[in-house]
Amino acid sequence: MTEQTIGQQSIQFQNAVSILSGAAIVGKKEGEGPLGDAFDMIGDDPMFGTNSWEEAESTLQKEAVGLAIAKAGLQKWQIRMIYAGDLLAQSVASSFGIADLQIPVYGLYGACSTMGEALSLGSMAVAGGYAQYVLSVTSSHFGSAEKEFRFPLGYGNQRPLSATWTVTGSGACVLGREGGKAHIAGLTTGKIVDYGLKDSQNMGACMAPAACDTIYQNFMDFNRMPEDYDKIITGDLGQVGQKILWDLLMEKGYDIRGQHMDCGIEIFDPETQDTHSGGSGCGCAASVFAAYILPKIEAGEWKRILFVPTGALMSKVSFNEGQNVPGIAHAVIVENAEKGGE
Amino acid sequence: MTEQTIGQQSIQFQNAVSILSGAAIVGKKEGEGPLGDAFDMIGDDPMFGTNSWEEAESTLQKEAVGLAIAKAGLQKWQIRMIYAGDLLAQSVASSFGIADLQIPVYGLYGACSTMGEALSLGSMAVAGGYAQYVLSVTSSHFGSAEKEFRFPLGYGNQRPLSATWTVTGSGACVLGREGGKAHIAGLTTGKIVDYGLKDSQNMGACMAPAACDTIYQNFMDFNRMPEDYDKIITGDLGQVGQKILWDLLMEKGYDIRGQHMDCGIEIFDPETQDTHSGGSGCGCAASVFAAYILPKIEAGEWKRILFVPTGALMSKVSFNEGQNVPGIAHAVIVENAEKGGE
Repeated sequence: MTEQTIGQQSIQFQNAVSILSGAAIVGKKEGEGPLGDAFDMIGDDPMFGTNSWEEAESTLQKEAVGLAIAKAGLQKWQIRMIYAGDLLAQSVASSFGIADLQIPVYGLYGACSTMGEALSLGSMAVAGGYAQYVLSVTSSHFGSAEKEFRFPLGYGNQRPLSATWTVTGSGACVLGREGGKAHIAGLTTGKIVDYGLKDSQNMGACMAPAACDTIYQNFMDFNRMPEDYDKIITGDLGQVGQKILWDLLMEKGYDIRGQHMDCGIEIFDPETQDTHSGGSGCGCAASVFAAYILPKIEAGEWKRILFVPTGALMSKVSFNEGQNVPGIAHAVIVENAEKGGE
Repeated sequence: MTEQTIGQQSIQFQNAVSILSGAAIVGKKEGEGPLGDAFDMIGDDPMFGTNSWEEAESTLQKEAVGLAIAKAGLQKWQIRMIYAGDLLAQSVASSFGIADLQIPVYGLYGACSTMGEALSLGSMAVAGGYAQYVLSVTSSHFGSAEKEFRFPLGYGNQRPLSATWTVTGSGACVLGREGGKAHIAGLTTGKIVDYGLKDSQNMGACMAPAACDTIYQNFMDFNRMPEDYDKIITGDLGQVGQKILWDLLMEKGYDIRGQHMDCGIEIFDPETQDTHSGGSGCGCAASVFAAYILPKIEAGEWKRILFVPTGALMSKVSFNEGQNVPGIAHAVIVENAEKGGE
């Protein structure tokens, strides 16, 4: 057995894990946003031809998985395990989305950080010698998430400016032992961080402390500075959470403003799409990673990035019982296969 | 990198992973059952000193984790990662139960199969060189589960005979690289298996096909017969699911009646405790494993067992929308450290 740990909370792979493909499918609103051209598929119908939002979300996962496998030039039987998750109670979008594939499955829940968790556990499986190929996938859907966490859509309640808009989308990546132009070189597993915040309409603020904790720990464990990354990319902090993250890291002596990017801020146009603080959801970080971030790393435009999906750990029940909304963030180091070490 | 796969869906560790400790805490009814003497702690108060069933369940996890770490002779900072899950929407029992520990966490959802998933991913992390020590924990609570999946307790509805009784309990295990009298030698990752059943009050029937699929695949991948295991132990099929599992495996040519045991059948006394088909829940398999199964392996009474927690993948929403209830089962091979290879 080879030691693959570094620092307190991180893993540095002896052999970096290849990202062989990424695929993303999104809804109409996301397709009309600034990243619209990057996505593999855009659905005009919010129900994606099904009878419910939950089935629609399952369809998103199924399509993203199928596309990712095809783009990697593989057949589904070659995928040894899927690491999958979503935001719905009991993760039903994943269970019903990927059942037909008949591939062994590990179900995950990390709220909107789940793509970080799925890439972490998936790459650990490949680097540990447990699989030639695995697949990581997450999804979210505006309709299913509003119903799960907030108000019935027909109620038409007014959303505060700190609220984010759940992305309708799914992103999937195939990981393997060799090949590919992008590598997962290491990761930092997140802790649950609770600053006592209780406002589920301001998830950016709830998640920013967790993002700070994981990014800071990544700097410590790998002995790096913000400049060692071309980009430090959080999942869905939005405008509100971004500022808090900057302030928190500044207090610890790190200025990441030059490197920081947030998938939730990138996916919608604040001028024309009125999503308040930005986009959110498991599908936000996953679809932006597969469609926009991964190609830039593959092309060598970015040599090394830190991808840090962020999640708010809560449910309708915990919220109604007056519990806090703690956050969690899992960081994945992704490098260009040739230029990553430069 | 060393190849650690075997067959189609299984992993055979080059270095078996040690189970250093197991701890279980349960509620009053479970404490009055046939395994009552085996549990580390029995709580008389169903609220465990808190204000809600959800907080009570979180307390169960916290106590079980603390006990397991202490029994392993470790401090909490030595645990590099926790693999945790429960049955509640957005896994809030875990999130709030283990946040205070400040240990990196991977949240899991596999319904009642989650302890199989937690032991699988935890042992993969240890054997892959990603951690010296990890911890696997799951929980369930009768009150929180009834509220989540069925009817308000005050409604007093009549339960069909095929229904199971959610166990109030939590089980936790510390895994490590060496030491301990029990080893995880390998595992078989489950697929989602859907026979088209829709009755959430008969989860045993919904899960039995998945248990059959995983056990059969384990026999194929390791080229084993039922007799190669002292016990084949499912999670919570109950009386109804057990018969279906026996029949399904018999159709494939395997008679496991001599080896089969089900945690849900063992934990309650059918004569005096009236739980209909038996016990169920994430906490059922986990607490029975930690309190009853693990000591028998450590003592050498059982040399090798197959532990197969079973889960029913559904939510209130998927059920109300008329979806099926598919199942999943994850198998873990646990051996006595000295006699396991005999």
